[in-house]
Amino acid sequence: MTSEKLDIVGICGSLRKDSLNRKALLAAKQLMPPSFEMEIVEIGDLPIYNFDIQQVGFPPDATRLHDRIKRADGVFVATPEHNATMPAALKNLIDWMSRFRPTPFDQKPVAVISASPGPIGGARVQAEFRRSMAVVNALVMIQPEVFIAYAPSKFGDNSLFTDEAGRDFLSKLLVAFEDWIRRVKIAYPVKA
Amino acid sequence: MTSEKLDIVGICGSLRKDSLNRKALLAAKQLMPPSFEMEIVEIGDLPIYNFDIQQVGFPPDATRLHDRIKRADGVFVATPEHNATMPAALKNLIDWMSRFRPTPFDQKPVAVISASPGPIGGARVQAEFRRSMAVVNALVMIQPEVFIAYAPSKFGDNSLFTDEAGRDFLSKLLVAFEDWIRRVKIAYPVKA
Amino acid sequence: MTSEKLDIVGICGSLRKDSLNRKALLAAKQLMPPSFEMEIVEIGDLPIYNFDIQQVGFPPDATRLHDRIKRADGVFVATPEHNATMPAALKNLIDWMSRFRPTPFDQKPVAVISASPGPIGGARVQAEFRRSMAVVNALVMIQPEVFIAYAPSKFGDNSLFTDEAGRDFLSKLLVAFEDWIRRVKIAYPVKA
Amino acid sequence: MTSEKLDIVGICGSLRKDSLNRKALLAAKQLMPPSFEMEIVEIGDLPIYNFDIQQVGFPPDATRLHDRIKRADGVFVATPEHNATMPAALKNLIDWMSRFRPTPFDQKPVAVISASPGPIGGARVQAEFRRSMAVVNALVMIQPEVFIAYAPSKFGDNSLFTDEAGRDFLSKLLVAFEDWIRRVKIAYPVKA
Repeated sequence: MTSEKLDIVGICGSLRKDSLNRKALLAAKQLMPPSFEMEIVEIGDLPIYNFDIQQVGFPPDATRLHDRIKRADGVFVATPEHNATMPAALKNLIDWMSRFRPTPFDQKPVAVISASPGPIGGARVQAEFRRSMAVVNALVMIQPEVFIAYAPSKFGDNSLFTDEAGRDFLSKLLVAFEDWIRRVKIAYPVKA
Repeated sequence: MTSEKLDIVGICGSLRKDSLNRKALLAAKQLMPPSFEMEIVEIGDLPIYNFDIQQVGFPPDATRLHDRIKRADGVFVATPEHNATMPAALKNLIDWMSRFRPTPFDQKPVAVISASPGPIGGARVQAEFRRSMAVVNALVMIQPEVFIAYAPSKFGDNSLFTDEAGRDFLSKLLVAFEDWIRRVKIAYPVKA
Repeated sequence: MTSEKLDIVGICGSLRKDSLNRKALLAAKQLMPPSFEMEIVEIGDLPIYNFDIQQVGFPPDATRLHDRIKRADGVFVATPEHNATMPAALKNLIDWMSRFRPTPFDQKPVAVISASPGPIGGARVQAEFRRSMAVVNALVMIQPEVFIAYAPSKFGDNSLFTDEAGRDFLSKLLVAFEDWIRRVKIAYPVKA
Repeated sequence: MTSEKLDIVGICGSLRKDSLNRKALLAAKQLMPPSFEMEIVEIGDLPIYNFDIQQVGFPPDATRLHDRIKRADGVFVATPEHNATMPAALKNLIDWMSRFRPTPFDQKPVAVISASPGPIGGARVQAEFRRSMAVVNALVMIQPEVFIAYAPSKFGDNSLFTDEAGRDFLSKLLVAFEDWIRRVKIAYPVKA
């Protein structure tokens, strides 16, 4: 089983092209264990959640994201903190996905990191993210936690993560995430 | 001063046309003190917050909402709870408004209620809302709290709030909000 | 494996003798699956956490609780909500346990319910509890959630849980907890 | 009015004698505006909240703290973060005070800072503290926020706060707190 490739969906909580968290996501992609294959998916074209839209039919992007997340072995999220909670873009993704039955996050291993320009590094947004993801029954890894504070000084022009200690923390989180995914797979084997 | 009319902006956290919280907002409008004039504003056309959009220029709806909120004496929000936190629509409004300097919520008296189909009535979303609004320096009234649980059974076809105890709680909250606005006005007189 | 008895530690977040949550805990004991053996342990004699005390040596009750929790197959907590967060008594238990290395909650399956006299049933305290327990790496089951609102009307003199729907919810949570414990055991087999 | 002395109660959320937050509290005392007179009160001897104790009678320390807080013009709290939420000692104070009618925190201006050895500086505990204090109707100042990260390196042997930027942030918070107290006094004049 150890040679099996793990299909990881990478999600950036910010829609900004030059987002610090997109850079953090790319850094994670560079540092991830050999067993990971991460595809970064875009969440930008979803309309804001509205039950009236859902009743007419899930938007194509909602269905696309549902299908992509559903077949993944794990979901890796890098998100900024906006006003002490989740950015609307990330919250919107969760709100749409939560309306599928079952949700694509059901029993899905998830990891989250956050990067911010300031000193806190997004400690509050991670707690909020976990709270929301619990409602959709996602299995969000709880330890270790990685907060990338003062992020603008830590990413070079080509998105290299230049902070040595930070790279080390992130690598450890990724190794732990690989372990978490494998344990969840053992605990929740897919029904044939 | 007591004869002064207070201009209240009403905001519904759900975009759904037939939203329970829209009905709760209408109920508040019916029950409000004579000094209140509430205008319910729509937040539906805002794009999801993206710094790249902001750099090109605030969308017209962001500017419209900023201007409307800025000149109000108070903001009254009725919101559902989606996945234990704020709906993307409401979070998106806060994220856009937070980018104006100063934000239109700065020192603005705000009250919040929540309605839900289930038994909790949105206890968690109110806490989250307060947390985010603190970042934009809004003065959200903290007591009393009103949670409208099992809301579908409490609103008639024409949005009448048929729950007698609930109407009483809501009326008390509105009276407290009028008091809160007047005290904030005394504490923070507008500079001429 | 299905015949193996599971040793469950029951903890009440309130120190009050006649606590509603103690009654809820007893109800859980009555409704639990045959594989569960629940022992309700008392947390009352712990001093309030103080690093200066810890440096002299863990109090006997801290060590007793550490040892008892450590050898349990699972921990079942029933707690009130005090001022929107955890009661000091429950928080104090977590604070003391968090100082052992490793903490006795490490990779421990945990379930939580809450009972309150009012309408909310403790929705906020459960979120707070999960957040704190994540720090000590406890594996708190996330679904289903049980909130016992208007609790005084639901428990008879001899602590019988007289609310039929509530008994059903609680039974389902206990079955899910048994499943959760077994899956965690498979995912994290004890090192020999 | 500007010459009036303001009586500030200082509270440390940690019981540890050599607490970083006690040092932060002393730093605040050194940096406070001339109008402030801060008395640091000890919360150490309160038993853990238990309704059974309350029914016999409030413990002398609860009554002492109630009386002291009630007559203060403001309350200034410095607290560590334990397991992502409030230390049991601070939560216990709030739980006891919340049982007085009215609570001594009712309409009381409050400010909070936090210090921690790690990089986050207590961002989560401040949010929790605000949430709990809202229930007891305290008027906790929301901006600016001060988090003292990596605190051990910032306090000298005699508790001097050696971090220049940190001293500046703290001074600004204290000035804002003075303004907050004066505005609350205007908005909520004491009934004669």
